[in-house]
Amino acid sequence: MAVVKIRLFVEDDLSTDAPLCIAGRQAHHIGQVLRLGPGDLVAVFNGRHGEWLGRIDAAGRKACAVTAVRCLRQQPTEPGLTLAFAPIKKTGTDFIVEKATELGISRLVPVFTEHTATNRVNDERLRINAIEAAQQCGRLSVPEVGVAKRFDDFLQTWPMTSPLLLADETGTGRPLTSVLSEFAEPGAKLAHGLLIGPEGGFSTEEFVKLRAMSFVRFIDLGPRILRAETAAIAALACWQALIGDW
Amino acid sequence: MAVVKIRLFVEDDLSTDAPLCIAGRQAHHIGQVLRLGPGDLVAVFNGRHGEWLGRIDAAGRKACAVTAVRCLRQQPTEPGLTLAFAPIKKTGTDFIVEKATELGISRLVPVFTEHTATNRVNDERLRINAIEAAQQCGRLSVPEVGVAKRFDDFLQTWPMTSPLLLADETGTGRPLTSVLSEFAEPGAKLAHGLLIGPEGGFSTEEFVKLRAMSFVRFIDLGPRILRAETAAIAALACWQALIGDW
Repeated sequence: MAVVKIRLFVEDDLSTDAPLCIAGRQAHHIGQVLRLGPGDLVAVFNGRHGEWLGRIDAAGRKACAVTAVRCLRQQPTEPGLTLAFAPIKKTGTDFIVEKATELGISRLVPVFTEHTATNRVNDERLRINAIEAAQQCGRLSVPEVGVAKRFDDFLQTWPMTSPLLLADETGTGRPLTSVLSEFAEPGAKLAHGLLIGPEGGFSTEEFVKLRAMSFVRFIDLGPRILRAETAAIAALACWQALIGDW
Repeated sequence: MAVVKIRLFVEDDLSTDAPLCIAGRQAHHIGQVLRLGPGDLVAVFNGRHGEWLGRIDAAGRKACAVTAVRCLRQQPTEPGLTLAFAPIKKTGTDFIVEKATELGISRLVPVFTEHTATNRVNDERLRINAIEAAQQCGRLSVPEVGVAKRFDDFLQTWPMTSPLLLADETGTGRPLTSVLSEFAEPGAKLAHGLLIGPEGGFSTEEFVKLRAMSFVRFIDLGPRILRAETAAIAALACWQALIGDW
């Protein structure tokens, strides 16, 4: 049996003999970059039906026909952590999406705060980065990319019963290990959120609003000032290690 | 009093009225980018004598004269963690150095393994990146950048009494929280190492050598395949949160 060289995210349902159509960048990658062709095997996943072995039937420039052969891995239950972050200029946002996907985030929500360095975000680019990272890291789902929200809207619509961990650089937070120990019982973790502010921090007014919300937990990430993307990755890794799926 | 806009790493000793000479990129940044001049204040640190307030006496294109005024923060004792990593092509190594510095690493050692994607490393670039990240994140030291070593040399010269945590992607490692709980008593942590392999993983032969070393602890970083730089940052963040200075 040939070695499976690539994992592909598909939208189609997966079942024995299901026909799958791979288009766009993925088809180009299969046919032109990896030069795979009829009979070669790929792994496919859709976030719902586990991971399947797929056989390439035809590989064209713009589309590939693949048939699902058999299930390789069942769909696991994943911790349901949301990362809400202020978009960063340049490649910072790409970086957050890639690393958070590798670290098993369930949902990504861009949040525009007063000091956020950019006022728009490319949802489609976020989605593509999340898919590519999911394919690469072996996970069986792609994080949902939520619609970008303004800070006030985000806070007002956050579900009151879900703890929202806030990376607090002002020194008023509690150690992350201490905060997470409150949620050590299984099941309690399923709808947590992690909110990371912009490089310039939250404004005084935003802090007042955050303090007024009973679901916000202020966490401390050590004595050094972390860049926004470092804070996101560091907090997420600790969350997975302490109460997630590590 | 003017606001201190910048932190600078210097080699000179720091004491009251000590004259400091700032040259090169730092001088350019002060004079040309930030347009600071005589009377403006900066913060300086050298990794030995804490953080000091400095007053600019003269700012030229190529050098600035600064006088140390008073100590702002005492030099703290830092956890002594070494990050040994296989250099990554493109900006991966820069990224590891920046993030590891933010997360308080004490020493960085590039290690060339069988599958390492590059066979050289620019020590000076690593050092500059470490200094810039240290200035930015507010820490009072710059991580030492060790001489790059071949895998065998690295393993043979590692101090036998220092635990070396190995990020193991093959599934034989123990959860990081479990391994670190062995070292929870204060003082036991002062000479840990963290070894991160290349994108292609360690070779079978390298794994045999690692298993033969009593100081190596195989750690598991969850069910997804992490890129080398993600594994480094994730493990380091957890180490700081659990037994470090967070």
